Amino acid sequence: MSYQEILYGTANGVATITLNRPEKLNAWTAQMEREFSQAVLTANADDTVRVVLVTGAGRGFCAGADMSLLSSAAEAGSVVSGHRKLEVDYPEGAPARLRKRYSWLLAVPKPLIAAINGPAVGLGFIIPLFCDIRVASTAAKFSTIFAKRGLIAEYGLAWILPRMVGLAPAMDLLLTARTFGAAEAQQLGLVTRVMPEESFATEANALAEEMACGLSPRSLRIMKRQVYEALETGLSESLDSAFEKMIESIACEDFKEGVQHYLEKRPPAFKGR
Amino acid sequence: MSYQEILYGTANGVATITLNRPEKLNAWTAQMEREFSQAVLTANADDTVRVVLVTGAGRGFCAGADMSLLSSAAEAGSVVSGHRKLEVDYPEGAPARLRKRYSWLLAVPKPLIAAINGPAVGLGFIIPLFCDIRVASTAAKFSTIFAKRGLIAEYGLAWILPRMVGLAPAMDLLLTARTFGAAEAQQLGLVTRVMPEESFATEANALAEEMACGLSPRSLRIMKRQVYEALETGLSESLDSAFEKMIESIACEDFKEGVQHYLEKRPPAFKGR
Amino acid sequence: MSYQEILYGTANGVATITLNRPEKLNAWTAQMEREFSQAVLTANADDTVRVVLVTGAGRGFCAGADMSLLSSAAEAGSVVSGHRKLEVDYPEGAPARLRKRYSWLLAVPKPLIAAINGPAVGLGFIIPLFCDIRVASTAAKFSTIFAKRGLIAEYGLAWILPRMVGLAPAMDLLLTARTFGAAEAQQLGLVTRVMPEESFATEANALAEEMACGLSPRSLRIMKRQVYEALETGLSESLDSAFEKMIESIACEDFKEGVQHYLEKRPPAFKGR
Repeated sequence: MSYQEILYGTANGVATITLNRPEKLNAWTAQMEREFSQAVLTANADDTVRVVLVTGAGRGFCAGADMSLLSSAAEAGSVVSGHRKLEVDYPEGAPARLRKRYSWLLAVPKPLIAAINGPAVGLGFIIPLFCDIRVASTAAKFSTIFAKRGLIAEYGLAWILPRMVGLAPAMDLLLTARTFGAAEAQQLGLVTRVMPEESFATEANALAEEMACGLSPRSLRIMKRQVYEALETGLSESLDSAFEKMIESIACEDFKEGVQHYLEKRPPAFKGR
Repeated sequence: MSYQEILYGTANGVATITLNRPEKLNAWTAQMEREFSQAVLTANADDTVRVVLVTGAGRGFCAGADMSLLSSAAEAGSVVSGHRKLEVDYPEGAPARLRKRYSWLLAVPKPLIAAINGPAVGLGFIIPLFCDIRVASTAAKFSTIFAKRGLIAEYGLAWILPRMVGLAPAMDLLLTARTFGAAEAQQLGLVTRVMPEESFATEANALAEEMACGLSPRSLRIMKRQVYEALETGLSESLDSAFEKMIESIACEDFKEGVQHYLEKRPPAFKGR
Repeated sequence: MSYQEILYGTANGVATITLNRPEKLNAWTAQMEREFSQAVLTANADDTVRVVLVTGAGRGFCAGADMSLLSSAAEAGSVVSGHRKLEVDYPEGAPARLRKRYSWLLAVPKPLIAAINGPAVGLGFIIPLFCDIRVASTAAKFSTIFAKRGLIAEYGLAWILPRMVGLAPAMDLLLTARTFGAAEAQQLGLVTRVMPEESFATEANALAEEMACGLSPRSLRIMKRQVYEALETGLSESLDSAFEKMIESIACEDFKEGVQHYLEKRPPAFKGR
């Protein structure tokens, strides 16, 4: 498959998806949506890929829905093409409750890292929330923006942001629509690492490669599912499920290797089984 | 309506409610409760008001339930007048689950900002948690206090505090009843801005006016409802609801204005429709 | 009862449980599990005890499941003795949903403080999450570790960690398995106080004694239950329950004393009734 509005590449266990309309700060379009989804599903199906990195070309991460589309939507009073429905392609085995835009990303078995290199605004603020880990360049800027556009908390933002950083900061970010930088994003817990602009691409990629090489893909896959499930179940149910998964993990190759490489003081060679 | 224990005024889209028993650090009484509720409902019904600011007169914000009332309650072994029931007046259209003391504040369509100018203790700690945004003066001090009085986590505190700042800090604040300052409150995410004592009233008011003038009242109203609803629903349900609300917003005046003022590089003139 | 792998002592209202296999960084064994449970239930039944402190002997807090046990489990492909079941002894009156390993700790009426003196890894990371308050020495280190061992988020970790510190940091800690120190643990809200290594034992004990002497045991007992219940109920239900408990507390001795000692400006003498 060839892509027009993203770049896609794989190396050392990491698939990198780069939003690629740099002259528009990678503003989101229906075409970019299709290509992004396709790329994520391709990475997920590729056995050589263990971690997916999402970043932006040029000085922006993603400026949100393309202004020209928003503008024609405002004139027409109706939604832009490609955003008319909530249904999307989703990974095989995705639980029914995670088959919508953009909750399907939570159902991708492989971990997604959003490497936020610059402004992440509106829809560009939301996409990283449906990735599993967020790291930011010192050049990153964030805004929910919706209250400045007469819009609302789109695509699950109202649900996931309070769970991600707490109700108090979430409400502040939504009700003021203010712009904030990487340092505050880290203080809020929204991003978990801030890296210098100059070395950002290299350092973000290094983190992804460390996860791909040093950690059990089976562990990551199961823990990702555990956490998102546990957001919507009781503790007792979650304990039962974790106990069952623990018993299963004891019988698996990755556990054997996890103990063995430690005792032999060598890097692990996990197979993901 | 004339008020005895609060002050009420409106200007530039902001209604300001000032708890006004400064000699008692604005300790809460049954009278103050009635006046506060009346003032919030009045502000909500006033078309010129877009944001409600709650603050305290003098050097305190609110020292909690008035000690003389607590004291007679302790002697009598029964609750103080006016606190005998959980039922309260609530805004029109409030969902059934938000018609109690003080959850009804979450059902007020307009955003409430607590401008915490000084000590906020006990009930005075709880009221701001049912506002949508909290800012603090450097002179603010906080304590849950209940464990020092032989009392319990009153009025939904046990429910909202862990969601607001996380279970770990919430439990610490409840089980130690310790006093903490504005800087820690900000670090916890409990307040989202700390302003110097000298300029606090001015700066807090400026924030409220910015929200009143620069943001779509329709967006704020809907996002407030979205967030509090999403605390008690699943992600899938929240996505469905957000999608519907997004489609509606595209057809609205505020969205048209939100795009237009941006393209014309001028301040917005939202109508809230 | 005599203990082999823990130390147990009580003084000034505080029961201290010290994990005591210092040469193994207090790595967890089936024997330690039995003794720990026994000690917690003993402290809970002891009327002179108001607060339970859990710490580690030597330079570690708890390095997780003992490596020799993990190693034989990896060889055998089956779980280690004593970890074969989720059912455990639990305190009288524990709600049904909190009768599992390690959720039963949330049902212990007395508050538990984890005083994390050194490395807390794997299972040693989980145990403190089921205590109510966590404080750390500057020498503390933390890691979920599971992804490095081919294991999963064991024993409710996937449920409680996101609620404790937010979804974003929780997912990062699970999916990177990285090691972090006391300062970051405090910034995340995971621990609420960091104390110098030299004075850690003394300062942690002082905190526990303050809670035992200065706060109503009845208040602590009820608030602990309120918070863990409220994690799994709606706001409306939580308000009803809090209102009922508030009315009850007004009629209790501890409330009378809570008001009285304040008015008389003397230390309280709570009886816990």
